Amino acid sequence: MSPASQSRSLIVDACQYCNWSELILRQLVEGRVSAITVTIAYHEDFRETVEHLVDWNRRFERHGDLIVPGRSAGDIDTAAQSGRTAVFFALQNCSPIEDDIGLLQILHQLGVRVMQLTYNNQSLLGAGCYEPVDGGITRMGREVIAEMNRLGFLIDMSHSGERSTLEAIAASQRPIAITHANPHWWRPAVRNKSDAVLKALADSGGMLGLSLYPHHLKDGSACAVTSFAEMAARLADEIGVDHIGIGSDLCQDQPDSVVFWMRDGRWTKTTQAGAGAKAGEGFPPQPHWFRDNRDWPHIRAALIEAGFSVTDADKVMGGNWRRFYGDAFAVGV
Amino acid sequence: MSPASQSRSLIVDACQYCNWSELILRQLVEGRVSAITVTIAYHEDFRETVEHLVDWNRRFERHGDLIVPGRSAGDIDTAAQSGRTAVFFALQNCSPIEDDIGLLQILHQLGVRVMQLTYNNQSLLGAGCYEPVDGGITRMGREVIAEMNRLGFLIDMSHSGERSTLEAIAASQRPIAITHANPHWWRPAVRNKSDAVLKALADSGGMLGLSLYPHHLKDGSACAVTSFAEMAARLADEIGVDHIGIGSDLCQDQPDSVVFWMRDGRWTKTTQAGAGAKAGEGFPPQPHWFRDNRDWPHIRAALIEAGFSVTDADKVMGGNWRRFYGDAFAVGV
Repeated sequence: MSPASQSRSLIVDACQYCNWSELILRQLVEGRVSAITVTIAYHEDFRETVEHLVDWNRRFERHGDLIVPGRSAGDIDTAAQSGRTAVFFALQNCSPIEDDIGLLQILHQLGVRVMQLTYNNQSLLGAGCYEPVDGGITRMGREVIAEMNRLGFLIDMSHSGERSTLEAIAASQRPIAITHANPHWWRPAVRNKSDAVLKALADSGGMLGLSLYPHHLKDGSACAVTSFAEMAARLADEIGVDHIGIGSDLCQDQPDSVVFWMRDGRWTKTTQAGAGAKAGEGFPPQPHWFRDNRDWPHIRAALIEAGFSVTDADKVMGGNWRRFYGDAFAVGV
Repeated sequence: MSPASQSRSLIVDACQYCNWSELILRQLVEGRVSAITVTIAYHEDFRETVEHLVDWNRRFERHGDLIVPGRSAGDIDTAAQSGRTAVFFALQNCSPIEDDIGLLQILHQLGVRVMQLTYNNQSLLGAGCYEPVDGGITRMGREVIAEMNRLGFLIDMSHSGERSTLEAIAASQRPIAITHANPHWWRPAVRNKSDAVLKALADSGGMLGLSLYPHHLKDGSACAVTSFAEMAARLADEIGVDHIGIGSDLCQDQPDSVVFWMRDGRWTKTTQAGAGAKAGEGFPPQPHWFRDNRDWPHIRAALIEAGFSVTDADKVMGGNWRRFYGDAFAVGV
């Protein structure tokens, strides 16, 4: 295969947090998913994050026939050529670096390639999207952005507040990503993004991963795939197809205790609402057209039905992330 | 330069623990030392060890004109060709892996390439050389040896008891090292090694790094370089020149508090004796012919004076470690 035809046929998902099992890894391969970026930590500190990395090292050792470590964009091609899935690591919060900027390079050495500066709440680096006040990027936040730029460590602002997001886009020397969110105009959820953010993101060369998490979808779990695809088509007209990919936020086989961990961490003793869910509500049902990693063809077909050319549909399905990761993870830029 | 001539001219020191400064790094370059293996931890747990790795990441970033990260043996050649020093990382104890075998791969990913299974005392893996009873390699010790073999993580038994050392040599699928010790027949110190250990080490393809730490030397700080070189010559006759290198144990510019940390860690509330020193004694003075990294020519000259050919002297000075590291750190063997 030529690089161009590879790029057209890639499926890349920029955000998954499944309850990993051999079953799910086999579904990834069956679904011809060439790369996923998996969440390693939400509220974990450094030491706890390392234990999750130990678990992944063991998965790579045991399931080398199904998955390969994702470190640079070329690993996506390696995976695609050998019928496996490249697994990249992401942090949804900065808690794993604690208050030590040196832990960024340590985590990068351990294979982590993406980090959100905030997760819903105020962090040491910026404000999350549920904070009543967003004071923007902090002093340490600016240092961390510069260090992430140096290392080739992708900045993700999916769960950040508006001001913090705009300031991160402006402060970063490299384009950033919002790996899993949708336009606010399609579903007015706190987690979905304003026109101002989407425009600034695309204008700076960044990427939006469209989310398939029901609370981010119009009509929630009942959302039609045609509605999703039409949203993507309108967004492509607005910000350009080259800036759109998918970050499904798939949380397959997770017990509800996990969504409470995501929302509540250890920062509260009460049960919080989040992402359109009332306090105490568990994971919403997946839309029927995206239950696991064998369902990607439904989305591709809907994109083409909604007016995307085959070339553009394949950009959204994975080609754009492949291109973007190539720049985002390159060292010595 | 051909690989052969490179190999002849290399200086490699398998054990240093200096109080690192730009001054010392410049002395390494001035002394044309192509590689050193530095101690990262004695009694530190994983998290503390990571902070030392953070410090080294910063040194590599700031002093890229002087040092390069040592990960594989080829980095020694890279350093030699560019007039810099490759810095490899070693642990003198297994405390950094705590009771988690998965931390071996994590530390390997962070660049660590050598680990002692024990440091003077009983560890989770085996017995140290000061324990009254040496029960040999433990259950976890056997698992760790197998995992180190898989990763290309060199086993070092410098501070281990006799039985544990012999059992590690037998259990390991790869040759092991004793990176810093001398023959017991030359200086009968607890830390120096018996004929049985030296023979088993060499017969299995292992390496001994001759120590320049005064308590390991005949006549201590007053040891003559001729005595050291004559010891090396006799040892080469006994076990073969290909199994001998140098591990100086240089602790330049360290305050005495560091030697108390080495001996006492946090395992005792009292002050211990160690390596020929009485309790409470600080670092001994260096022999006048090896005060810092500009003094290597004195040793090479003495080796040739003691009867080594130039070829064999250069093997001892660094060529043997270069060859041995090539096998020891190779992955997928």
